[in-house]
Amino acid sequence: MVGTELLLGEIIDTNSAYLSEKLAEMGVDLYYVTKVGDNQNRIADLVRQACQRADLVITSGGLGPTSDDLTKEAVAQAFELELVLCRKALKAIEERFHSMHATMSDNNRRQAYLPAGARALPNPKGTAPGVLLELPEDKAVIMLPGVPIELKAIMDGSVIPYLKERTANGGGGIIGSRVLRFYGLGESTLESVISDLIAAQTNPTIAPYAGSGEVRVRITAKAKDELEAAQLIDIVEEELLARLDEYFYGYGDEGMEVVVARLLSAKKQTLATAESCTGGLISHMLTNVPGSSAFYMQGVVTYSNTAKARVLGVAPKLIEDHGAVSEEVARAMAVGVREWAGTDIGVSVTGIAGPGGGTETKPVGLVYFGLSSAQGVVVERRQFAGDRLQVKERTALAVLDLVRRHLLQRV
Amino acid sequence: MVGTELLLGEIIDTNSAYLSEKLAEMGVDLYYVTKVGDNQNRIADLVRQACQRADLVITSGGLGPTSDDLTKEAVAQAFELELVLCRKALKAIEERFHSMHATMSDNNRRQAYLPAGARALPNPKGTAPGVLLELPEDKAVIMLPGVPIELKAIMDGSVIPYLKERTANGGGGIIGSRVLRFYGLGESTLESVISDLIAAQTNPTIAPYAGSGEVRVRITAKAKDELEAAQLIDIVEEELLARLDEYFYGYGDEGMEVVVARLLSAKKQTLATAESCTGGLISHMLTNVPGSSAFYMQGVVTYSNTAKARVLGVAPKLIEDHGAVSEEVARAMAVGVREWAGTDIGVSVTGIAGPGGGTETKPVGLVYFGLSSAQGVVVERRQFAGDRLQVKERTALAVLDLVRRHLLQRV
Repeated sequence: MVGTELLLGEIIDTNSAYLSEKLAEMGVDLYYVTKVGDNQNRIADLVRQACQRADLVITSGGLGPTSDDLTKEAVAQAFELELVLCRKALKAIEERFHSMHATMSDNNRRQAYLPAGARALPNPKGTAPGVLLELPEDKAVIMLPGVPIELKAIMDGSVIPYLKERTANGGGGIIGSRVLRFYGLGESTLESVISDLIAAQTNPTIAPYAGSGEVRVRITAKAKDELEAAQLIDIVEEELLARLDEYFYGYGDEGMEVVVARLLSAKKQTLATAESCTGGLISHMLTNVPGSSAFYMQGVVTYSNTAKARVLGVAPKLIEDHGAVSEEVARAMAVGVREWAGTDIGVSVTGIAGPGGGTETKPVGLVYFGLSSAQGVVVERRQFAGDRLQVKERTALAVLDLVRRHLLQRV
Repeated sequence: MVGTELLLGEIIDTNSAYLSEKLAEMGVDLYYVTKVGDNQNRIADLVRQACQRADLVITSGGLGPTSDDLTKEAVAQAFELELVLCRKALKAIEERFHSMHATMSDNNRRQAYLPAGARALPNPKGTAPGVLLELPEDKAVIMLPGVPIELKAIMDGSVIPYLKERTANGGGGIIGSRVLRFYGLGESTLESVISDLIAAQTNPTIAPYAGSGEVRVRITAKAKDELEAAQLIDIVEEELLARLDEYFYGYGDEGMEVVVARLLSAKKQTLATAESCTGGLISHMLTNVPGSSAFYMQGVVTYSNTAKARVLGVAPKLIEDHGAVSEEVARAMAVGVREWAGTDIGVSVTGIAGPGGGTETKPVGLVYFGLSSAQGVVVERRQFAGDRLQVKERTALAVLDLVRRHLLQRV
């Protein structure tokens, strides 16, 4: 990934995530992704190194018309090649300018020069052609522009067909993967439960990683096609769930709020929230899900004790006796919000998000949350670590998980 | 950047952009950023190569408790070192588990092992300590966890002070920078207003960049010390504000909610929120600011029309005549929430966050928001682009900016 702007933190590199995904789909193992600035020697050194440690090197960026676009020069330098004019590429650039009714500058002519022996890959979205340079020992360097839309167009039009042919000749197959999400146990606990599976893994592989307040496990399979990959992954998923079913809540990109929203919709249940320490976050998360107006009508943030009393009918005496952060108040809030909103389910949360407000007996991170329904009320207590926002986020996740368990009749 | 998930395209690496920015601020030239998977040999090769081409190597990721966390093992391998138990690190991990009332597993004990000669860097946000390994020829490897909040905490607490001392001893001078935040104009408009300043820049440099719904300008000065840098930056800031004062709202990391919270506290004003399409986000943002209970007592999310009527007293006839997304309803909600909560200020928002619910006359992204105070009511209308979450975020920012302008008597 070539470009000084990538090293200054001003631009987040999205091309490499795109390329990673495409390569994985084709079964190409990606070993390294490196960002380097617009410096010809450093790019040349990097490409040389990269060709030693891999069969294929793809570059992105540095093919533009300006003087800090140096990728082709650097690749030529790395393999001691001349840059030569490619007439076909020049014609394509000329035609593009013609169709845009624009005048071509000498700088754009530079874009038609390629390292000797290389071949231009047509760019339907811009002037810079991609470049394919095949090297001895079946190695290759593919140079793509940094503009994402151009990079993608050349990948689709030229690179993917080229790589498919290469991998098919090599009998390559594809890489498929699936992510399972778990709530309620830590990464190290999870790993100890499945350590024998991890130790025995070959294909598919199993990799746990920590999310924010949850744990994910990625199962990755090499297979001849997507169907076979899915079948291999299914077997491992089944083994994992046999041990971890009570913690499993969903797949892939879908957060807890999406899972809860789907359950609420499916069971035609409505929900109202009464939030103190989370300050509206639970409500925000639920309403991030499109269609949430089907189950979510109203919620209230009762930050002050007065609000808890006035809106939710929490008796001031209860707060006086037990404190606002207590099982009793969480219970009264859950009952109160269900009544206030007229919903099937009322959830409540009261706690100390910090950094101030903690005491010896009620430290920062202590939260009580409740759920009221036709079946009665449950209240849970948790002690979270982290800063103010982390306590809010972990609490929101715990409350949503309580709703999930309630809807699955596991509470 | 260590982690197979980074190479599969499932996670966008934001740590390297963060590190890039911090290193630039300290005047450290960043030459390469490389992503590598959880493979001990490849990580070891990479770290060895990286130490040949740079004085300082920072790694992120692979310090967790599980068996695919291999960064310390790989660094030890690269420099032929043993891993030895660091009692101080072990004690910190034990204390963390103790304070969380959680049981520590043997896996977490692994996190206290460091390459021989290395030193643990305290991690206030997690169990994995950072690691500093100083090598011959004034080289160093710094290992940080991959969880962004932990990485940032160790950078702030240990790495930045360490690097500042190193660069100061090298007589290098420093790079100081300051970010000004603007709301209410686009990046290209801003750039055209100050294009002459950008064209003439040498030291300090001026770089505008787009944030989420706002624009920031970073002023960066090279100077012998922080005082000189601040003086150079002051001059440029003054020139910028002479042209852009009406859009300027704050500095650096402080978001609009922090600025609004500070104004509310200073002016001893209280605020209540009535949210429809933002679904609790405004409330969440305000309560992210420590001490927000001084000005924020309660808020309500009235997602349904029934809730708007019952809680806020919005006449059903008004909704029938004008629609829930209308100036009239925003006005009635703002008046209603101020009365409901008994606060100095009531703000309201109603709109269409999408993706569904838009019509020809009221498309997705249309929002009305109001502010009610002793001085009367103002309502504003905006049309935002973007997906559901972006519309919510842009709306919340616009509402908070209205509160800011009200408190500064600019509405």
